[in-house]
Amino acid sequence: MQKRSFTINGESVTYYFAGCFSMLRTLADPAKTVLITDENVFRHHEKRFKGWNCIVLKAGEAYKTQETVNSIIEQLVELETDRSFTLVGIGGGVITDLTGYVASVYMRGLRFGFIPTTLLALVDASIGGKNGIDVGVYKNLVGIIRQPDFLLHDLIFLNTLPDAEWVNGFAEIIKHAAIKDAALFRELEANNLTYYRKKKKEACRLIERNVLLKTRVVLNDPTEKGDRKLLNFGHTLGHALENQYELSHGEAISIGMTYASRLSASLTGFRQADRVIALLDRYELPTYAEYDKERVFSVLKMDKKKSRDQIYFVLLEKLGKAVYRPLSFDHLYETL
Amino acid sequence: MQKRSFTINGESVTYYFAGCFSMLRTLADPAKTVLITDENVFRHHEKRFKGWNCIVLKAGEAYKTQETVNSIIEQLVELETDRSFTLVGIGGGVITDLTGYVASVYMRGLRFGFIPTTLLALVDASIGGKNGIDVGVYKNLVGIIRQPDFLLHDLIFLNTLPDAEWVNGFAEIIKHAAIKDAALFRELEANNLTYYRKKKKEACRLIERNVLLKTRVVLNDPTEKGDRKLLNFGHTLGHALENQYELSHGEAISIGMTYASRLSASLTGFRQADRVIALLDRYELPTYAEYDKERVFSVLKMDKKKSRDQIYFVLLEKLGKAVYRPLSFDHLYETL
Repeated sequence: MQKRSFTINGESVTYYFAGCFSMLRTLADPAKTVLITDENVFRHHEKRFKGWNCIVLKAGEAYKTQETVNSIIEQLVELETDRSFTLVGIGGGVITDLTGYVASVYMRGLRFGFIPTTLLALVDASIGGKNGIDVGVYKNLVGIIRQPDFLLHDLIFLNTLPDAEWVNGFAEIIKHAAIKDAALFRELEANNLTYYRKKKKEACRLIERNVLLKTRVVLNDPTEKGDRKLLNFGHTLGHALENQYELSHGEAISIGMTYASRLSASLTGFRQADRVIALLDRYELPTYAEYDKERVFSVLKMDKKKSRDQIYFVLLEKLGKAVYRPLSFDHLYETL
Repeated sequence: MQKRSFTINGESVTYYFAGCFSMLRTLADPAKTVLITDENVFRHHEKRFKGWNCIVLKAGEAYKTQETVNSIIEQLVELETDRSFTLVGIGGGVITDLTGYVASVYMRGLRFGFIPTTLLALVDASIGGKNGIDVGVYKNLVGIIRQPDFLLHDLIFLNTLPDAEWVNGFAEIIKHAAIKDAALFRELEANNLTYYRKKKKEACRLIERNVLLKTRVVLNDPTEKGDRKLLNFGHTLGHALENQYELSHGEAISIGMTYASRLSASLTGFRQADRVIALLDRYELPTYAEYDKERVFSVLKMDKKKSRDQIYFVLLEKLGKAVYRPLSFDHLYETL
C-alpha cells in the first residue's frame, strides 16, 4: 500500500494505492458511515459489506439521475444520517458521481470517499472532484466540483470486472497518453489488453501513472479554467453520442477521439491521427459510428463547453500535446 | 445608493444598498441573464421584467422543493442557458434559496445575484450563501453554501409587501438584536412596526444595520463552525414547528425564541426572557403554540444541528450575548 496526499483547491485528498477493502475501517467509523454501491458490485462482493450501513442502487448510467438522488436522500434520512457521517461510494463512475454529488448537497455537505471498482473509475471518473447527474440526454448537466476526502484502491474488484469494462477504461488511458504523455502512448502501442489483465503489477503501475497524470492536471486547474479542459479530448462529440445511442462511455469517447484526431489533422496539421485510431483499435475500441448528425448537433449546442455560436474543442498538435480551440458550429457541422 | 464589497470564504459579494431595479442592467447583460421570481412579485411589478428572460414560479415555502428545481432546470435548458449566464433571484427567501441552489449545481455553477423583495430576505435569507430546498418536513435538508456575486436592494418592493411579511422580517431583526446587539434591542423596544413602515429612511438604516451584523458573523465563520451557529437562535424548535403547522418562518422562530429564552433562564441564568417575549409581542409575533411534542421531537432528531443523542441549542446569557450549548434529547424533552 502506498499513500499520497494532495491539496486541490483547498481541499485535501488522500490516495491509498494498492490498498485493501478491509482498511476502510481505519478511514471511516462503520457506525457513522453509509456505503453506496450498485447491485453488481454488491452481488459479487456481498461479504465485504457485512457490518456496514449500505445503500444498493440499480447499476448503469441510466440511473445517474435526480430520481436516484431522491431515493438515496430518502434512505439517508431513514438511516438517521447526520453531518457527522461519511459517505463512501464503492463502484464505477456512476456510483462515484452520485455519491460525490449527494455528499455535497445533503445537509450542505458530508465527508465522503471512494473505492473505485472499475478501471475507468480508477484512472478517471473518481479523480478530480467533478460529480453530478444526467438530465435527459444532457450528461452531467447538474453537479458541482468537490474533492473526496480519500480514495482507496483495492484491485481485487478488477477480478470480477467484465471484458467490456476493461475496454472502457482503456479509452481514458489512451486519452491521457494522447494529450499528455507520448511515452505512455508508445508503451500502450507495445502491449495490449491481455498483457495488462494478466500482469497485475503492470496494471497497478499503469493505474497509478494515470491517476497521477490526471491529478497533476486537476491540481494545476481545479476549476477547469485552462489545462483541465484538455481532459475533454474526445468528450464533446462523445457525450453527444453516448446517451442517444446507448454506447458505453469508452465507446463513445473512442469515436469522439477518432473524429477529434481527424479534425486535428485538418486544423492543427496533426500527423498521427492514424496511430491514435490504430491504438484505439488495438484496445478493442470502436473508431466509427453511423449517427444522425442533426440530432447529435442539437445536443452539442447544449454542451457545457459551448458559448452561444461556437464550441470549444480539444485538438491534438502532436502525440502528448493537446490544445483547446474555439470552433464555429457551422465549421464543425461541415467537417463532421 | 451605497456600494459595499466583502470577500467571504474566497468568494466576492457586493451589496448595493438603497439601489434601484433599473441598475440591474449594469450588473448583468439581459441577453445572458435569466431572472427567477414568483407569481406575486411578477404580478405586482410586471413592467420591470420587460426585456428580460424570466422564470416565474408559484409562490410559497411549499414550492421550495426538488420538483421546482427540476422545473427551473428544464426551463434553463429551453432558454439555452450556458455557463456564461447569470441567474438573478428576485423575491423572498424561497426564491433566493432556490436561485442560489440551482445556480450552484446547473452546469456545476453559474454566476448569480439577488434582488431581495421581502424584509425577511433583505435582512436575513439573502445573506450568507446558504441555499437549498426542503425535503418533506425537513427544512433545508439539501443545499450548499455559495455566495451570490451581488445583492441589489430596491426598497420599492416593500410597498407591495403584505402586513404579515413585515412581521415575518421583524422576527429575524429581533433575533439579531437578542444575540448580538443590545443597543438595537433597545431601539426596537422604543419603536414599533408602524414607525418603520412609515419612515422609509429609518427602515433603510435598520436594514443596512442588520445586513452588516449578519455579514460580519458570516465573514468570521463562513462554514458555520462557530459564531455563525448563533444565528440559529429560535430556529431549532422553529424549523421543527414550521412545516408541520403551516406557520410562517417568522411565527415559527418567534415561538422558538420564546422557548429558547425560557430555557436560557433555567440553563444560563438569563434574566431578560420577559423582555424578549414582550418585544416579539410588540412586533405582533406569536409567543405561544399548542403542538404535538412527539411529532415535533421526531423532526428535531433529524435536525442538521444534532449529533446522535444530543442537539446543539442556542441560548442567551444576556441581551446581545448568545452561547451554543449541547443539550441531551432527554433534558430537552422534559423541559419543553
